[in-house]
Amino acid sequence: MRIAVVGGTGKEGHGLALGWARAGQEVVIGSRAPERAVRAAETINAAVGHAAAVGMVNREAAMAGEIVVLTVPYDAHEETLRDIRDSVRGKILVDVTVPVDLEKSRRLRVLPGGSATEEAQALLGSETRVVAAFQNISHTHLAREGGVDCDVLVCGDDVEARQEVIRLAGLLGFRGVDAGPARNARVVEGFTILLLGINRRYKSKGAGVRITGIEGPSDD
Amino acid sequence: MRIAVVGGTGKEGHGLALGWARAGQEVVIGSRAPERAVRAAETINAAVGHAAAVGMVNREAAMAGEIVVLTVPYDAHEETLRDIRDSVRGKILVDVTVPVDLEKSRRLRVLPGGSATEEAQALLGSETRVVAAFQNISHTHLAREGGVDCDVLVCGDDVEARQEVIRLAGLLGFRGVDAGPARNARVVEGFTILLLGINRRYKSKGAGVRITGIEGPSDD
Repeated sequence: MRIAVVGGTGKEGHGLALGWARAGQEVVIGSRAPERAVRAAETINAAVGHAAAVGMVNREAAMAGEIVVLTVPYDAHEETLRDIRDSVRGKILVDVTVPVDLEKSRRLRVLPGGSATEEAQALLGSETRVVAAFQNISHTHLAREGGVDCDVLVCGDDVEARQEVIRLAGLLGFRGVDAGPARNARVVEGFTILLLGINRRYKSKGAGVRITGIEGPSDD
Repeated sequence: MRIAVVGGTGKEGHGLALGWARAGQEVVIGSRAPERAVRAAETINAAVGHAAAVGMVNREAAMAGEIVVLTVPYDAHEETLRDIRDSVRGKILVDVTVPVDLEKSRRLRVLPGGSATEEAQALLGSETRVVAAFQNISHTHLAREGGVDCDVLVCGDDVEARQEVIRLAGLLGFRGVDAGPARNARVVEGFTILLLGINRRYKSKGAGVRITGIEGPSDD
């Protein structure tokens, strides 16, 4: 699988890309600045010991990927989506965006579109299947090899796309949990703010979330 | 401690009241119909084998309790709060309400006040400290004796009141986690809808949530 990580030079994007490269996937790093994307890809290749990653400008990266993962700050969300819209048509877009309030970073921002994920789906249209995932996974977890004690909550309006992203999470050593329609991303995105506060209050660097009381695959 | 459970004849209220009675607390069951409250208290007393509970009409129950727990459907939320407002002044009100969409019960309702908890705090005023808790705990968990594999996320604008409710959760065998200000109740209330969907998809009766990566008490 060739996975594009748009905004892949940030901590979260780097962690995801490195994890998939380690799991034997081809990775395409996207950045607004192509030279930064190339450098980020070289770092990944050095870490995994083979040529797993290449770097390109965001739009080309999105074009090259079979599945496209978006890891940009919320402020760049709409602009980046407009930039890559044609490149992701017919694909799955995995949205990792958390709409943090810029003024008060511990607060969840109230979005006109409900959640970053719903806004992305509205902007890209029905030909692209948007799935929210990985927002609650600290980049400190991604940097760690081996099993990690947290789940990836996966939301989106297309059941098959959710299952595909649950497999992508599995490649990184996480259990993906089918958390329902795109509308539920309001809760999952907000949960990140809650975890950031818990990190602060409990002096933790990587509070996470586990769903208990379920076994086996989902019924969908 | 004398704990009033307003709306204590429902499944969730009954489970909470029974748990606290088992833990040696005095319990006051409130209901709109006093005879139903009395019957519910008798059921609890029979279960624990001593006179732990009494039943009263909601307003009197709220007056009798040192701490007041509200477990009513969202549709009765505002009316019940107006009814007990004077009775809870100066106390902690623990709000267990989840604003489920009546038309589409799997959907989170968008509230003008942000969350049931914030609406309760606005209605009761600053003399009453509102704390959100227990919304994610299935009544099937409450019915079980002994340790349960899920946490109670505790939100509210008063730090000491949150700590008090964390202790109340501990009496029921749950770890309470300090989840920050009342605003975060938007996420915690919404998480219940997410868990209901997960129950359905994974054929579970009691999906729950655990916060991972934290140890010890909070720093507040």
